[in-house]
Amino acid sequence: MSDFSSFSGSNVLITGGLGFIGSNLAIRLLELGADVTVIDSLIPEYGGNLFNLSGYEKKLKINIADVRDPHSMKYLVQGRDYLFNLAGQTSHIDSMTDPATDLDINCRAQLSILEACRQFNQSVRVVFASTRQIYGKPDYLPVDEKHPLRPVDVNGINKMAGEWYHILYNNVYSIKCSSLRLTNTIGPRMRIKDARQTFVGIWVRRILEGMEFEVWEGSQLRDFTYVDDVVKAFLLVAENSMAEGKIFNLGGNRRISLNELAETLVNINGKGSYKKCSFPAERKKIDIGDYYSDYSLIKNTIGWEPETTIECALQKTLEYYSRNIKSYI
Amino acid sequence: MSDFSSFSGSNVLITGGLGFIGSNLAIRLLELGADVTVIDSLIPEYGGNLFNLSGYEKKLKINIADVRDPHSMKYLVQGRDYLFNLAGQTSHIDSMTDPATDLDINCRAQLSILEACRQFNQSVRVVFASTRQIYGKPDYLPVDEKHPLRPVDVNGINKMAGEWYHILYNNVYSIKCSSLRLTNTIGPRMRIKDARQTFVGIWVRRILEGMEFEVWEGSQLRDFTYVDDVVKAFLLVAENSMAEGKIFNLGGNRRISLNELAETLVNINGKGSYKKCSFPAERKKIDIGDYYSDYSLIKNTIGWEPETTIECALQKTLEYYSRNIKSYI
Repeated sequence: MSDFSSFSGSNVLITGGLGFIGSNLAIRLLELGADVTVIDSLIPEYGGNLFNLSGYEKKLKINIADVRDPHSMKYLVQGRDYLFNLAGQTSHIDSMTDPATDLDINCRAQLSILEACRQFNQSVRVVFASTRQIYGKPDYLPVDEKHPLRPVDVNGINKMAGEWYHILYNNVYSIKCSSLRLTNTIGPRMRIKDARQTFVGIWVRRILEGMEFEVWEGSQLRDFTYVDDVVKAFLLVAENSMAEGKIFNLGGNRRISLNELAETLVNINGKGSYKKCSFPAERKKIDIGDYYSDYSLIKNTIGWEPETTIECALQKTLEYYSRNIKSYI
Repeated sequence: MSDFSSFSGSNVLITGGLGFIGSNLAIRLLELGADVTVIDSLIPEYGGNLFNLSGYEKKLKINIADVRDPHSMKYLVQGRDYLFNLAGQTSHIDSMTDPATDLDINCRAQLSILEACRQFNQSVRVVFASTRQIYGKPDYLPVDEKHPLRPVDVNGINKMAGEWYHILYNNVYSIKCSSLRLTNTIGPRMRIKDARQTFVGIWVRRILEGMEFEVWEGSQLRDFTYVDDVVKAFLLVAENSMAEGKIFNLGGNRRISLNELAETLVNINGKGSYKKCSFPAERKKIDIGDYYSDYSLIKNTIGWEPETTIECALQKTLEYYSRNIKSYI
């Protein structure tokens, strides 16, 4: 396994760097000796939160900017060795009520970023955060990268296009890009104010506030990855030339029903309660049923696999928010 | 086979209706007794040409508007029975040099149109003009609808997203949409000023102007459909409930190399010459090699198949432009 020494002294840009995965990645890169700049727009409905990098403000640069602004991006991509491209609109429901904004962020801004790289920094190494959402309702399980793409919401369609721009710029302009299709990711620094980033966020908030949380349906199977494992995947992909131009699934080491996840969360917390609900009508239309990933491609290509159990992931998450909940609600 | 009586007295909107396929479709719908409105922006680099509907101006409504304008579209979709959605940026090369404009037309405008339908005309029947370009370089031939989508240029990525918006609005909002993945289409009213719409356009122009035309590479196989056959496919799909929410390939009845196509064109014209060239560098990167469609899905579902031979298609095309070339260059 890599010691990630290639990041020491490197110049790194992280879009969405005040968000959940972006901020965890930024902190890890600081530990590895990188010179880190994060970009974030701090749009209230998204994942960015200044508290995510609290205590690190003097060790890295925080640049508040919107990736939809092509002028800022032209300047900001220059001189970077690595660009971790995690800025995005993530809410499925918001993408249906405001499709144009989802398009601007998940498509137009991605094109601007890649155009900026093409014009001003062709040697940058780019890793894009994609999503399992682009597969839609699975034909078979576990879902591998050959599964047809049939997104079931505007967010999925736009993320699919955003991913393909990256592969295109790799193939046509030789800008080294990779894409990771993330499954449900949990851990410290995720958004817990509501379910816009992950439904586990609102579960964690409610259980820590002593309130009942809702399990929609409940029998559907999912896989979960802990954020540290996801951060490791981004780093491994970035430093490995075998990953250039490639798309990889990430996945969890266990499939689990939402009912069992809820029960596990309550057990680890020591108290708490939830109620089972049927899907809200507008949500039912875009639900995908069971989903879990086949991550053997990334395992076989560059040796990544998830290490953290769901129990450990939930425990660390609860510990983090027990201490810091005021900064997230 | 249908007599298309369902279109008699129907209220039809055609976006891109001054363009190649749109104008041929408009004329056919007039013959069938429909009340036709065409929308076109007449952007000089695109397919729209007022001459395409010359002589029909009093029989239909020509509304100059840009599909990127959501306000006009909100009004224009109202009261329609059918919406044939053919407006698009089609040039592969232009999509690489100006990806943002391609995105606006092929993604943002499509979302606006569908949102307008959702808000103001949920009962409209929509048929979208998609493209074989979204398959990218084929894994196997002939290419059926199950072939993975791996577009090789920005235009292909954006058309893929535009198609998926239609399927999504069908599935989630019950707006009846279908998509046709067109292969190379030729015939009267195509753009011949340059190769922005099809390379056959510039071949036809040059041969009629007594100039040598260029065959890039030449051994690659393609299929071609004559525009009247494509128009028939749009009509069959629009009136058939079996086609709702579906995506179909169109295809030609013969695969033919570009060398043979060039030779056939010269023979039918009775004179003319061409030279073989290697691909320009920027074009080579996005070329897909051999391509031809498997159109058995639409044949088996609603009975469409191409009827016009390539020889007949070329002959009718040459006849049309011999008479009208001044209006197209």
